[in-house]
Amino acid sequence: MIGLEDIRAAAARIEGNVRRTPMIAASNLKTPLAGGVELMLKLELLQVTGSFKARGATNKLLSLDRSMLTHGIVTASGGNHGIATARAGFMAGVPATIFLPSNASPAKIEKLKAWGATTRIIGSAWHESNEAAQAFVSETGAVYFHPFADPTVVSGQGTVGLEILDQMPDVTTVLVAMGGGGLVSGVATAIKALAPHVRVVGIEATGSPVLLRALEVGRNVALDKVTTSVATMACAKTDDRIFDIVRDRVDAIVLVDDCEMLRAAKSLWFEMGLAADLSGAAAIAAIAEGQVRFRSGERVCAIICGAGPEAIQG
Amino acid sequence: MIGLEDIRAAAARIEGNVRRTPMIAASNLKTPLAGGVELMLKLELLQVTGSFKARGATNKLLSLDRSMLTHGIVTASGGNHGIATARAGFMAGVPATIFLPSNASPAKIEKLKAWGATTRIIGSAWHESNEAAQAFVSETGAVYFHPFADPTVVSGQGTVGLEILDQMPDVTTVLVAMGGGGLVSGVATAIKALAPHVRVVGIEATGSPVLLRALEVGRNVALDKVTTSVATMACAKTDDRIFDIVRDRVDAIVLVDDCEMLRAAKSLWFEMGLAADLSGAAAIAAIAEGQVRFRSGERVCAIICGAGPEAIQG
Repeated sequence: MIGLEDIRAAAARIEGNVRRTPMIAASNLKTPLAGGVELMLKLELLQVTGSFKARGATNKLLSLDRSMLTHGIVTASGGNHGIATARAGFMAGVPATIFLPSNASPAKIEKLKAWGATTRIIGSAWHESNEAAQAFVSETGAVYFHPFADPTVVSGQGTVGLEILDQMPDVTTVLVAMGGGGLVSGVATAIKALAPHVRVVGIEATGSPVLLRALEVGRNVALDKVTTSVATMACAKTDDRIFDIVRDRVDAIVLVDDCEMLRAAKSLWFEMGLAADLSGAAAIAAIAEGQVRFRSGERVCAIICGAGPEAIQG
Repeated sequence: MIGLEDIRAAAARIEGNVRRTPMIAASNLKTPLAGGVELMLKLELLQVTGSFKARGATNKLLSLDRSMLTHGIVTASGGNHGIATARAGFMAGVPATIFLPSNASPAKIEKLKAWGATTRIIGSAWHESNEAAQAFVSETGAVYFHPFADPTVVSGQGTVGLEILDQMPDVTTVLVAMGGGGLVSGVATAIKALAPHVRVVGIEATGSPVLLRALEVGRNVALDKVTTSVATMACAKTDDRIFDIVRDRVDAIVLVDDCEMLRAAKSLWFEMGLAADLSGAAAIAAIAEGQVRFRSGERVCAIICGAGPEAIQG
């Protein structure tokens, strides 16, 4: 689907239009997360639009010829990719229409509107919203921004991986939350090309283990049901090319449930002053729940992939 | 009260016990804040305990002989200094008692308890809580941690200034929120010693303009009333030594009101994914409201001094 050169091209294309996010040591915690391990947090929740998704959507936008944007852009998204697409529309000055499932958070819908997008709530899961979005493409000629099944989107997300290697050259393990698998595919592609010894671990919601199940059966299969309430991690079936990347480049996938993610989000707020959404806290949940084992002296990077109010309101 | 050497000593003393917080460019905003100016945010809201106050309290703690801590530690604080003192007690393994005015936020009281402190709500303004705290010192022999009228505390806060100059050597203006004036005194002392051409601008709440009034009359005077609802910026009278530092080392003081700070906090959340408390957003409010004028090409650092839920809940 993509290689290192696609990610490097994406980095050059989006530079100046998204943020190079900082990294901070998760040090001086009241309740240490993982003994004997140095933990750094890659603060993608401080990215434009509140998540890494701005990288992929911006790369998609800037890969398109201006003449293709006449009828606007459209996507289906549980939230963060939708906001990133809305911002792409704002950047380009064209209408953006975002289809969402009914479990999308009110705060994210408000952000979509603030970026000037039109929102349409259709279906109870992402694939239903997505069917509506694709029908909209047929009707209107708008350009579809897929949240993950698009090489330009995945390449954009992969720029996080380049920055991690630059900011933390001696990293040994990178932890990445997964929904459709776009972020982990991009990050793993960058990391395995430049530093193949670095372990990439994906984290899925217990209620949406789509890639873990697919790896178990050896092909890209659909889940019977998706039960997580974390919209940004809900996905009933991913793309075949994403499956191939995850199979070849991701070292392991672990699961965390919604309560564990909420607990981790609360700890990030208390310990670090970070307001992560539940997918943003998934990597911390995986560490806190002992789902990932570390050798002594490991240098671990957890991608805090999105901002949200859950820990503060909940 | 303090000089550069005190701040350098503080930096060495607290290193490893607090965080070196990152700086991030406030770039790619939907609504640009100040045209022609480069704005960097110093993310002290990601400091241990959620604000810069951990620096001063940690320096105070580590300046004390262990034998002095037998009867615990105590302070009066609208919130952030209290939490930092509570954490100092946790670090040292001694009881911490925190006196607060009735307008302290429930979220901060919860954090105090999470750090193991005993809380006592006394009075409606800080000076009333502070009288109770000082009576407690007389009764128990606990060590008093003053929020600002203490050279070790101010020196600790000043380490923010050293980091700013290190992270942004070509800074031209630094914006600092003020309550009692401890942070701005420390930061201005560091900056005027090492880079006297850099402008230091303090921001007070319209409802607590204690140092602005004092400068106007030329001596350290008390306000008749404090009307801001922002507990972390409320102060009826500061310390004479703080007054001297502010007079000699701070270039200007500007005012922002509580609504302007809330608006700025909401913009930080929308634009940057940062959950600042209202004092943490004061510097952004001062820019957004045009209270500080910049020459074209200035490089500005705004200290985002504390975390809080206000923008997300409100």
